[in-house]
Amino acid sequence: MNDVRMRGFKARTEVSRFQAVVRERTRRLEAETVALEQAGGRVLADAVLSAVDVPAFPRSAMDGYALLAEETYGADTYNPLAFNVIGEVTPGRRFEGRVGPGQTVRIMTGAPLPDGADAVLMAEYTAEHDGVMTATASVTPAKHVGRIGEDIRAGAPVLPAGRRLRPQDLGVLASIGQATVKVVRRPAVSLLITGNELLKPGEAPRGAMIVDSNSLMLRELAIRDGGRVAEVRHLRDERLLLREALLHAPGDLVAITGGSSVGVEDHAPTLVAEEGELLVHGVAMRPSAPTGFGWVRGRPVFLLPGNPVSCLAAYEFFVGLALRRMAGLAESWPYRLARVPLRERIASQIGRVDYARVRLVEGQASLISTSGASILSSTTAADGFVVVDQDSEGMPAGQTVDVWLYD
Amino acid sequence: MNDVRMRGFKARTEVSRFQAVVRERTRRLEAETVALEQAGGRVLADAVLSAVDVPAFPRSAMDGYALLAEETYGADTYNPLAFNVIGEVTPGRRFEGRVGPGQTVRIMTGAPLPDGADAVLMAEYTAEHDGVMTATASVTPAKHVGRIGEDIRAGAPVLPAGRRLRPQDLGVLASIGQATVKVVRRPAVSLLITGNELLKPGEAPRGAMIVDSNSLMLRELAIRDGGRVAEVRHLRDERLLLREALLHAPGDLVAITGGSSVGVEDHAPTLVAEEGELLVHGVAMRPSAPTGFGWVRGRPVFLLPGNPVSCLAAYEFFVGLALRRMAGLAESWPYRLARVPLRERIASQIGRVDYARVRLVEGQASLISTSGASILSSTTAADGFVVVDQDSEGMPAGQTVDVWLYD
Repeated sequence: MNDVRMRGFKARTEVSRFQAVVRERTRRLEAETVALEQAGGRVLADAVLSAVDVPAFPRSAMDGYALLAEETYGADTYNPLAFNVIGEVTPGRRFEGRVGPGQTVRIMTGAPLPDGADAVLMAEYTAEHDGVMTATASVTPAKHVGRIGEDIRAGAPVLPAGRRLRPQDLGVLASIGQATVKVVRRPAVSLLITGNELLKPGEAPRGAMIVDSNSLMLRELAIRDGGRVAEVRHLRDERLLLREALLHAPGDLVAITGGSSVGVEDHAPTLVAEEGELLVHGVAMRPSAPTGFGWVRGRPVFLLPGNPVSCLAAYEFFVGLALRRMAGLAESWPYRLARVPLRERIASQIGRVDYARVRLVEGQASLISTSGASILSSTTAADGFVVVDQDSEGMPAGQTVDVWLYD
Repeated sequence: MNDVRMRGFKARTEVSRFQAVVRERTRRLEAETVALEQAGGRVLADAVLSAVDVPAFPRSAMDGYALLAEETYGADTYNPLAFNVIGEVTPGRRFEGRVGPGQTVRIMTGAPLPDGADAVLMAEYTAEHDGVMTATASVTPAKHVGRIGEDIRAGAPVLPAGRRLRPQDLGVLASIGQATVKVVRRPAVSLLITGNELLKPGEAPRGAMIVDSNSLMLRELAIRDGGRVAEVRHLRDERLLLREALLHAPGDLVAITGGSSVGVEDHAPTLVAEEGELLVHGVAMRPSAPTGFGWVRGRPVFLLPGNPVSCLAAYEFFVGLALRRMAGLAESWPYRLARVPLRERIASQIGRVDYARVRLVEGQASLISTSGASILSSTTAADGFVVVDQDSEGMPAGQTVDVWLYD
């Protein structure tokens, strides 16, 4: 690709074609082993089978009395039956003796069922005085007894590969005796933030300088999509600086913000083309037209516009897709959808995708009018966004649309 | 409250009444100041107003040429107009001179508009040779110029109190020069895990011992609901040990698992009654009947069943509510809803709430049959749960129900 600076994009890639290129070039990362305490929200690399039965012994599901069920037949409040209480068994211990005819053992929920007993009579249907329990109800064999492997059988599949681990999944993994689990490694992202006009977050804007808002935003988005940030560098718009940073950035994916268009200071596209492959440059969408994607030294490199709304939209359509694929997550946006009518018409053009910020007002989606690509506050004032498809010229007021909700 | 052990619950509190007690006793925690990098997902304590205009200067929204708009009138491809290029201005610098009649300054997106210019002509409609730019289109005043305060005006509200900070919110806070932000402090939770039968997570089950699955699960749930875990202690079922742990636990909220029912080893309810107030003990729900709530030394104390499904459901109905209120989050469950028909009837009783785990099968909600309170794998095999209201005797097959999705 030749120098395109100051001459505009010759042709813009369709959003769907760009996404297809991202899919072709990205795949799930390899597995790593982490402690269970660190595994919440991570993605299982392989299916998990249990090596053990849970429980490994028959256990009581109630507080009550362990006994032989057939000895309780006929017991009711008019005909209480008496049993000699020969002991007690609590969770974590085994009862050393055996329950014989006319005998019972006081038992707590979770305790192993003593030998000789085959059922548990709930405490509510009993009374105990001077070592004698009187039963006022009968039970059938196996009543209130959890059998071996009732929860999990040895050899059985416990969790499928690809599962994003839920709180209760960690509990199950602990209960089968796992201390660690194999999960998909989180993609590490290098953020190269370019622009002579940029101050670092935490500084106060002054003179012709503004504060970089993209790095904090991209860091949070990357974490949301299963990634982590390996390094953030703020760079002046100097070709050699950017080249060094690009070639030596740590991590699995590089995102460069700023300098992604066709101006004289836009070094990123030509650098990517020189040092590797520039696969896409210029997208048929609004905002975010000056977005690019390439491949340098075996890694994906995204060129993101410096304008913060464009940067956000370009992340959402392309970088997030790559990260979720690498992290083993579902490709779809992690936003809830609302289906509501449009309050005002949205204008677009055939062949172009629009990312339109909307507010929900009285159950309708209302377009945010200050919609310039540099107006980040349009995305904080918005409740979500509507995507206008490339085959659409826009959508009339009243049409029901899908709103992707930021919260 | 007297000793209730081994005599069953006299009366069970309705779920809605229990939740009302939790609401009466919990409120949003105070604010703390954190660095922006740590603020993602945190809840804003106060509304944020901007102290500055963003941008603080008029800036170009395009790559092109800064000039006086009226000098371009009449320019088109048949009538190109010439301007002397007297310099260039890039982002982060001011142009030192002034644009006079017949003059222009090359300008990049984001750069301050030079004095004397009032518009930007896009590079696409220009050509430049030997210091002369020829314009083939006209522009109107203010075209492609972002005015002072266009994004954010000094003094204007930027984000409302109570907002859970989004990625782009951090960008906006950075852009107005904030290095820190005041957010609601995260409630710190002490987990007291009781049971002689319990091994710690990471150990292998052996003999009559099983591995605690609740602590890892509760930790993840607490983090999800805006909290953090201050301490996890595994305790034997000894009254004095539990008393000491209860009185000296760090944090804003204590959750005790196990020993919450009416057995002889169930010390927690009587301890809470002795050392503070036992406000609720015994709930009209299945599972999780042996759940309690009290107040000891100025802090909420939850008594959760040791059975993992009961523990999960009790967390979801009561502890999560308390934590989300303390963290300043919305009270509602952070789960997506699906509305689907029931594949099989769910049985219940009037006066009791049921937490029924279901799988989604061919677009229907199918009840998981191994529904015992000790079967944690029922919650990992499930896609979500259905709540059977206390006014319902159950729900017939075919009825459309709300399924709260775990993922």
